[in-house]
Amino acid sequence: MLDSSTWRHVFKLDPAKALTDEQLDQVCTSGTDAIIVGGTDQITLDGVLDLLSHIRRFEVPVVLEVTNKDAISPGFDYYFIPLVLNATNKKWMMDVQHEAIKTFGPMINFDQVSAEGYCIMNPEAKAYKKAQCRLPDKEDVIAYAKMTEHVFHLPFFYLEYSGTYGDVELLKAIRPHLKETQLIYGGGIYTLADAEKMAAYADTVVVGNSLYTDFKQAIKTVQIKQIT
Amino acid sequence: MLDSSTWRHVFKLDPAKALTDEQLDQVCTSGTDAIIVGGTDQITLDGVLDLLSHIRRFEVPVVLEVTNKDAISPGFDYYFIPLVLNATNKKWMMDVQHEAIKTFGPMINFDQVSAEGYCIMNPEAKAYKKAQCRLPDKEDVIAYAKMTEHVFHLPFFYLEYSGTYGDVELLKAIRPHLKETQLIYGGGIYTLADAEKMAAYADTVVVGNSLYTDFKQAIKTVQIKQIT
Repeated sequence: MLDSSTWRHVFKLDPAKALTDEQLDQVCTSGTDAIIVGGTDQITLDGVLDLLSHIRRFEVPVVLEVTNKDAISPGFDYYFIPLVLNATNKKWMMDVQHEAIKTFGPMINFDQVSAEGYCIMNPEAKAYKKAQCRLPDKEDVIAYAKMTEHVFHLPFFYLEYSGTYGDVELLKAIRPHLKETQLIYGGGIYTLADAEKMAAYADTVVVGNSLYTDFKQAIKTVQIKQIT
Repeated sequence: MLDSSTWRHVFKLDPAKALTDEQLDQVCTSGTDAIIVGGTDQITLDGVLDLLSHIRRFEVPVVLEVTNKDAISPGFDYYFIPLVLNATNKKWMMDVQHEAIKTFGPMINFDQVSAEGYCIMNPEAKAYKKAQCRLPDKEDVIAYAKMTEHVFHLPFFYLEYSGTYGDVELLKAIRPHLKETQLIYGGGIYTLADAEKMAAYADTVVVGNSLYTDFKQAIKTVQIKQIT
């Protein structure tokens, strides 16, 4: 069973984007608590397997965030299933996930599977458009967080700003409402200072896009593990 | 915190339908494990309060199944929130529930709140039409049940045939997939024999409509508690 409760920092790698082998080695040995493989566009089984075979040579836990059932592969430690809470179309809240469970049936080991209650906050993000999201206000977001903890009992509530830096005040407002459910923040973390501000309220910060734009700064964000 | 794990038989009373005071007394003293107050149409606060004030004079636990946020009242032991898994419209899966959590905010004591993963199987039922359901096949239903237990971690999976007697073979097929989540069956139970067949696989059977059509037979269904 997954114990992610101590995860403070996670890197997210996109199978559709490229890092050099050396950079990948650096990510894997950076001291990050886990690596999530996930993305929205052009996620292929080949791309997923390329990353997996590289990362598996190291000890860091590796998670597949399942967004395309044709790109699911065995061999990961855990599988995270995003449920898009602020989607307007039920498909992205639970129907594609239901379809995957129907398809893979007894092959699924649910001890390796965790659902993430996703709240996507950037209207320009591909995932936002794909899931036909609506932008929630502060009270909406808090009610989503409560629902995630008390109604759905999900292990994760994931506030996702996809490439843009989010509202730290919103994160602060969510914080007191989550006791059992882990609060994950992702989006626009380019520097250690960016990470530090969000890690003051989030249990876990996810650093993704910036690996592909300013690798050197991005890799340093792992240091929040020492300073918070 | 609710412990409903021993509930074998539950009566469901519809605030929009009438029983005599004597009949209500009989329901309350029947030995049933709990009474759920709930319905689909014309659920008013007055109707809910009339039932509550009657039932509260007895010791039986009383639950409000929340289908209309304008008819929520304090004073119940528990509040069940139906999430319609086979709705096509996300509204009835989680958005009206989210709206209620947003509205009532800190007034909600989540220790009294449990969500039910509903699967509505009768296309003629008012709830089916209201929630714009689609009819799931056997594999769909099993995948909904698995999702209820392993993804959402809900306390209840509720197979609802609303007034018609359901497919006992389907209930049998679901049974091995639910270990933590309680399997509830409702629909078309008019006699003790009807109840017995479903109770062979369901943890809990719900008897509702038949109270309003053949009270004498309906009240006898409580006897499944002795014979199963």
